[in-house]
Amino acid sequence: MLRLGVDVGGTFIKAGVVDESYTILHKVSVPTGGDGGFQTVVQNIAHVAELAAQEAGLAVGDFESVGIGIPGLLNPKTGVVVSAPNLSGWQNVPFLDAIQKLLPVPVRVGNDANCAVVGETLAGAAKGCQNVVMLTLGTGVGGGIVADGKLFVGGQGLGAELGHMVLQMGGTTCGCGMKGCIEAYCSVTALVKQTIRAMEADPSSIMHAYAKEAGLVDGRTAFECSKKGDKAAVEVVEYYCRYLANAIGSLVIAFRPDVVLIGGGLSNQRDYLMDKLNALLPQYVFASDIIGVPPILRATLGNDAGTIGAAFLDRM
Amino acid sequence: MLRLGVDVGGTFIKAGVVDESYTILHKVSVPTGGDGGFQTVVQNIAHVAELAAQEAGLAVGDFESVGIGIPGLLNPKTGVVVSAPNLSGWQNVPFLDAIQKLLPVPVRVGNDANCAVVGETLAGAAKGCQNVVMLTLGTGVGGGIVADGKLFVGGQGLGAELGHMVLQMGGTTCGCGMKGCIEAYCSVTALVKQTIRAMEADPSSIMHAYAKEAGLVDGRTAFECSKKGDKAAVEVVEYYCRYLANAIGSLVIAFRPDVVLIGGGLSNQRDYLMDKLNALLPQYVFASDIIGVPPILRATLGNDAGTIGAAFLDRM
Repeated sequence: MLRLGVDVGGTFIKAGVVDESYTILHKVSVPTGGDGGFQTVVQNIAHVAELAAQEAGLAVGDFESVGIGIPGLLNPKTGVVVSAPNLSGWQNVPFLDAIQKLLPVPVRVGNDANCAVVGETLAGAAKGCQNVVMLTLGTGVGGGIVADGKLFVGGQGLGAELGHMVLQMGGTTCGCGMKGCIEAYCSVTALVKQTIRAMEADPSSIMHAYAKEAGLVDGRTAFECSKKGDKAAVEVVEYYCRYLANAIGSLVIAFRPDVVLIGGGLSNQRDYLMDKLNALLPQYVFASDIIGVPPILRATLGNDAGTIGAAFLDRM
Repeated sequence: MLRLGVDVGGTFIKAGVVDESYTILHKVSVPTGGDGGFQTVVQNIAHVAELAAQEAGLAVGDFESVGIGIPGLLNPKTGVVVSAPNLSGWQNVPFLDAIQKLLPVPVRVGNDANCAVVGETLAGAAKGCQNVVMLTLGTGVGGGIVADGKLFVGGQGLGAELGHMVLQMGGTTCGCGMKGCIEAYCSVTALVKQTIRAMEADPSSIMHAYAKEAGLVDGRTAFECSKKGDKAAVEVVEYYCRYLANAIGSLVIAFRPDVVLIGGGLSNQRDYLMDKLNALLPQYVFASDIIGVPPILRATLGNDAGTIGAAFLDRM
């Protein structure tokens, strides 16, 4: 039977019809409509499920199940979303109850970063692994953990918020209001801020020309100019990688995964990023001289990881 | 039936005969004899098991099982001890195989800090909790985690080395050689170093007289003088508690325990320490305004936690 995986983002709700071999057969999306509040988004999710079913020549009731990834803190058992900063009015809302009423098949819900690590572990870069740590580097830093073959979500399903674990006590203020979070150093947002600072300090950097041509400063600016040997860009990338490697090292000490996955747009830097991180990692892992370190790999499924993982949340 | 719990330390091997209600009926101990190498310690463990059985009027074969806590990195499934810095020559040794040959009942092995959290969760301060984080503050910082009612040990059983997770990237050098570990700020060793620095900087501090009378500077010096209002001591305690609270906050974000336990000698500071930590915690926990924070409590079983936990490792 086919399943439906749904990824609720701040702008679009994306859905994919997934078969038993983890292949996405059809994709559809609708605007999230977050400004309309909780009930509007719930109705839009039901609507995207109907569109996906039509696309597959089915009714929603023909799906084996529907899985939904949410960008926020939620208890996957009760289905209550405690907080979702990108969705207006989603604070302590009984999401699973509300959407289950509109869909005639079993519904499961999960945090979006958790769905991504499930997808990558079932069908992507961590296929077959029993212990996985995944960081999704974007506007923020999302975290997902598979431990002993199961999705690890912590008490009440509210743990594994890896982006807000401490990296430098008292350091840079994070979007969450705390100081020194991993996210404050390792998100693409943080990388862009650091890039802009370096550009301001060095008018001769080729990053100025690169950004002008691209029309903006983004996560690529420093990386692409670093590849061309630009001194300021090299320093930005080295600084960024050092912080990210230390954050990963700390997570390895806690979870001892078989593999660490990097997802999000920055993972497009492929070996250029992974080689640096893998070279730096041992110095940030306790007893790495005796027990080694796991490889850091690029997540391979991109946005599909969340869709596939949502559809198969019950497999982990 | 009765079980035997064994706690292997750098100086003594302690054993306790434990009944089904988690009461320790008899205690015995022998010197560890660590200088004699791996086989000597293994034989001494077998010897302490015989002594404990005699004390209970039994033979070793009458125990239902023997559980052994080891101060080091080990894989509890294979029983291989990868590293145990306080035991000479214990690197990649097949400990479980070696000790099982000498004991006629099922043997289980675990890391000592993991045994402690099992003991406290079965019979101590976290009784009945499904999710627990415990930090044992001593020469180092030991960590133990119970997640969803099970002992959480990470891949190959080598994770949960919480004391070596990062607290301040690039900060104080830790005994492990890395920089900025939780242990480098939150161990009693770190507290004593900070106390000595503060005493050197303030000859008028009453910590000088306190230490002179006690015969040494230890983990109590700053705390006891802080209670008397000594300015330098108050600052040491505030500094220490701030770092410890931030470390705990980061672990709460990862594991979302129902309760955080503090064990080790410093937990004798009881409410004086716990009140400060509980007051500081919310500012170091992501979304604490929405989802709150767990209470930080003193572990109540002391050294018995490790004995009871070792004896009942199979219960978690």
